[in-house]
Amino acid sequence: MSHHDVNRKQTTKPETSNSDSRKADNNELDNDDRHPSRTNLVHRLSVALDDELANNLGHDQDQQARRVIARRKTFTVHHLKELFENEFGARLVDYGKTTASIVRQFCNEIPMTDDTPFYIVNLSHYARQYLQWLHFLGRIHPFYAVKCNPNGFIVRIIAEMGGGFDCASAEELDLVRATCGVDFDYATRIIFAHPCKSVSHIKRFREAGVQMTVVDNEDELKKLKEHWPEAKVLLRLKPDDKGSLSPFSTKFGANELECITLLRMARVLGVQLVGCSFHVGSRCLDAQIYMQSLRLARRLFDIAGRDEFGFDFKVLDIGGGFSGHNWDKPSFPEVAKLINKTLDKLFPESEGITLMSEPGRYFASGGMTLVVRIIARRIHNQDYKSQEEVIKLERSYSLPTNSLVQAANTDESTVSEQVLIECAENIYYINDGIYGTFNAIIFDHKVFTVHYLKIGEQEKNPKQYKSVIFGPTCDSVDCIAHSIDLPLLEIGDVLWFPDVGAYTSACASNFNGFKTKKYMFIWKG
Amino acid sequence: MSHHDVNRKQTTKPETSNSDSRKADNNELDNDDRHPSRTNLVHRLSVALDDELANNLGHDQDQQARRVIARRKTFTVHHLKELFENEFGARLVDYGKTTASIVRQFCNEIPMTDDTPFYIVNLSHYARQYLQWLHFLGRIHPFYAVKCNPNGFIVRIIAEMGGGFDCASAEELDLVRATCGVDFDYATRIIFAHPCKSVSHIKRFREAGVQMTVVDNEDELKKLKEHWPEAKVLLRLKPDDKGSLSPFSTKFGANELECITLLRMARVLGVQLVGCSFHVGSRCLDAQIYMQSLRLARRLFDIAGRDEFGFDFKVLDIGGGFSGHNWDKPSFPEVAKLINKTLDKLFPESEGITLMSEPGRYFASGGMTLVVRIIARRIHNQDYKSQEEVIKLERSYSLPTNSLVQAANTDESTVSEQVLIECAENIYYINDGIYGTFNAIIFDHKVFTVHYLKIGEQEKNPKQYKSVIFGPTCDSVDCIAHSIDLPLLEIGDVLWFPDVGAYTSACASNFNGFKTKKYMFIWKG
Repeated sequence: MSHHDVNRKQTTKPETSNSDSRKADNNELDNDDRHPSRTNLVHRLSVALDDELANNLGHDQDQQARRVIARRKTFTVHHLKELFENEFGARLVDYGKTTASIVRQFCNEIPMTDDTPFYIVNLSHYARQYLQWLHFLGRIHPFYAVKCNPNGFIVRIIAEMGGGFDCASAEELDLVRATCGVDFDYATRIIFAHPCKSVSHIKRFREAGVQMTVVDNEDELKKLKEHWPEAKVLLRLKPDDKGSLSPFSTKFGANELECITLLRMARVLGVQLVGCSFHVGSRCLDAQIYMQSLRLARRLFDIAGRDEFGFDFKVLDIGGGFSGHNWDKPSFPEVAKLINKTLDKLFPESEGITLMSEPGRYFASGGMTLVVRIIARRIHNQDYKSQEEVIKLERSYSLPTNSLVQAANTDESTVSEQVLIECAENIYYINDGIYGTFNAIIFDHKVFTVHYLKIGEQEKNPKQYKSVIFGPTCDSVDCIAHSIDLPLLEIGDVLWFPDVGAYTSACASNFNGFKTKKYMFIWKG
Repeated sequence: MSHHDVNRKQTTKPETSNSDSRKADNNELDNDDRHPSRTNLVHRLSVALDDELANNLGHDQDQQARRVIARRKTFTVHHLKELFENEFGARLVDYGKTTASIVRQFCNEIPMTDDTPFYIVNLSHYARQYLQWLHFLGRIHPFYAVKCNPNGFIVRIIAEMGGGFDCASAEELDLVRATCGVDFDYATRIIFAHPCKSVSHIKRFREAGVQMTVVDNEDELKKLKEHWPEAKVLLRLKPDDKGSLSPFSTKFGANELECITLLRMARVLGVQLVGCSFHVGSRCLDAQIYMQSLRLARRLFDIAGRDEFGFDFKVLDIGGGFSGHNWDKPSFPEVAKLINKTLDKLFPESEGITLMSEPGRYFASGGMTLVVRIIARRIHNQDYKSQEEVIKLERSYSLPTNSLVQAANTDESTVSEQVLIECAENIYYINDGIYGTFNAIIFDHKVFTVHYLKIGEQEKNPKQYKSVIFGPTCDSVDCIAHSIDLPLLEIGDVLWFPDVGAYTSACASNFNGFKTKKYMFIWKG
């Protein structure tokens, strides 16, 4: 990663002792966006102490959060107690208990010699998200996008709740088969939602009894005709982003003109087109895109029904893009309201259209918390630089475009990054990093929030030091934070990161032999 | 990935029919650097046709390449025939056969319905690299850096040749144990070369009988005292990069001042310091850094021997940083010559110092070729954009800083990337991508070279089209090339990429369920 803008200023608040009592449910509250001043630091990370949320959230947001929590508690999941406890050995935790205190409890139980990083998985989160979905978008059947977090426990719970699955590959299908068994209704509860499928994968889905897939180009239509002629196929639309300044689908989707070509070709080939799908892009920040896409879908439903094509579209898949956190803007309830209103107008219930969707992040994001240990450190890092060296480094930091730097053929940001590290007071090494869970910094533009938990005595207002957090691999790119304020921490102290359930472990590699593979299950009742 | 500079100009030469006969050994010749005009495209990729090398290599380089090939052939590996063929089912291939023709042969044998991507592994490459190492750096014992490509077949061959292993984690140690068995000499042939070790990993190495490790900070020294008191420990130096404009070790290594503190502390704690190690950084482009580091090591050897410390240093580990290709500048023979000269001066053989090193890329890079199929495509992509739209897009491409773009809150490069894709004539989807082998574009700044192989008739001077190559996942970031010239290819046609053995599969994730896991073995005799 060569282009890093840097921002050395990050603030943190001192920790207080009554941190546990302030929040009703930390795990339900923590979210990426609650620190409004995002920096340009590529390795973005904000420091949160346990009581920060209550202190810093704006009043409205706080109230909204409290309303969400109050409502979510009414989504009872006690009927899943046996599944949680017998199948996964999950521990029952009081609904009001904060993530901070849950982390502390796990860490107290684990011997200090066991420094394996682990995820705490809140199984009831997936069930409550499902119930929340039904509450707000009852007409739309959710098909969990397995890619987001391909773990059997999520698949098991969503299957139990009645959900379907969006599988992008044969391997994802295999996970559902291994979890749900042969009696699962593959015909109606799986969609092979990849517009560009390899023939070998088509064969596997077909053998499993899957019936539904999507198409967005001519070659794919011919491929389906040859290798999966009985498939029920949705036209994957490219959201009409005229008027949108940040357009989405460069990779998948057919525009209106292409769709008409595909309708014509499908008619000739005899491929069964049964409806439309679209995907507004991951973490859609503009709910209008759903409305525009629904209007495009409506047009396509009408066009497909014309005599020259003669298709009777009966399925509409509105894809994903839903946030996993209710305090994101626009919030899920807000987006849901808009979608319902548009659906009632364009696709009224009386028409009998089957509505489906492909949420991934919505289910997975809030379900996992990463807990790591500080496995090594380098304190007084700065003391070993001579004053002269530090000055030299700081000058090249403040004047990054000077000729010396350019002559070195390193770009501004590389130097700045190095300067931040060289000038930091303490350096910590943890046992998960950029090649693991934190790949989301690079691939998903995720802003992680770090909490710390000292194993020894907690000071009240500990002195803060400019600190660096490195991941465990040999690579210096494996740096999670270049310059954040942290108190002096010890080897064995804990850092934890909430809301790491989406597009994290799913895209983690095993580089250097490090990968977080341990899952501790809880459920909240 | 948000910061992409783009370069639309890439040229390619038409393929000719006698492409196989030009090169003695394509696999030995292909390398990242043979296209001197590297672009700033983050998703860098150059198109190479089978005969390009012979046409385009400068005369000197060509001669050097031929000399290398001639020499390497004399490194006989026939005594490993049984290992290659019986243990791995490797196929014997004539030394002069090009990679292009080997790829063609494999693809002809595999049924068209099997579109699984695979690596072709040249097992004899690892053995020949070992012999070449002995030839040029006979005094230095190589410990293969397992992280670079943690596959049993490499470990097996290097162990058979007499090499040791640099393991960074317990999982890498487990691989060596699974491959080499209990009778392997863990005390002398493994180094736990990670300066920041977790206690649980120390325990595993100790139990396995490993004896050697490295240290670069005070906390680590205390950790060793407590958890591995009998370890033989090397001081990991930070290469002295005064005078170097692109300094290396921000993450690991102790400078001279820190080393003196560590010597003092080790003496008090009774930790056995037995020598020094350093690492000049991966793919070291300046051989002078080795010389400077060796001088620093010599100083530390002398300092450690002073009465106040009383250590008798006997081990020097010169780390890695060696290129995997002899036509890189500086070439391995050149670097080796410089190292030998400096060693003879500073650490003459008569002193009886044990010399070791940690090459990874040197062994692994040239050993693997990736072969993928085009699994889907979108042709006439541009035809579906109205002329007006294309103009609009092209304008925003040529004037990327206009206000419209800024208002969209997308940076210049994001728009340009999208424009390149929207304006491309053909789009291909292959079954490996940025989350797989091509993660090296992001993490290792690797420039891949693509070759194509048409399954049908090969045209003589095929028309070239602006093309995009996407990986298989749902993510639009998963784009391997934004705008390269390729002829019209069909679904089922093959793309292959030589020299993908280092830091590729090692850092690949299984995102969307796609990961290249199939290995086809050959050896060249």
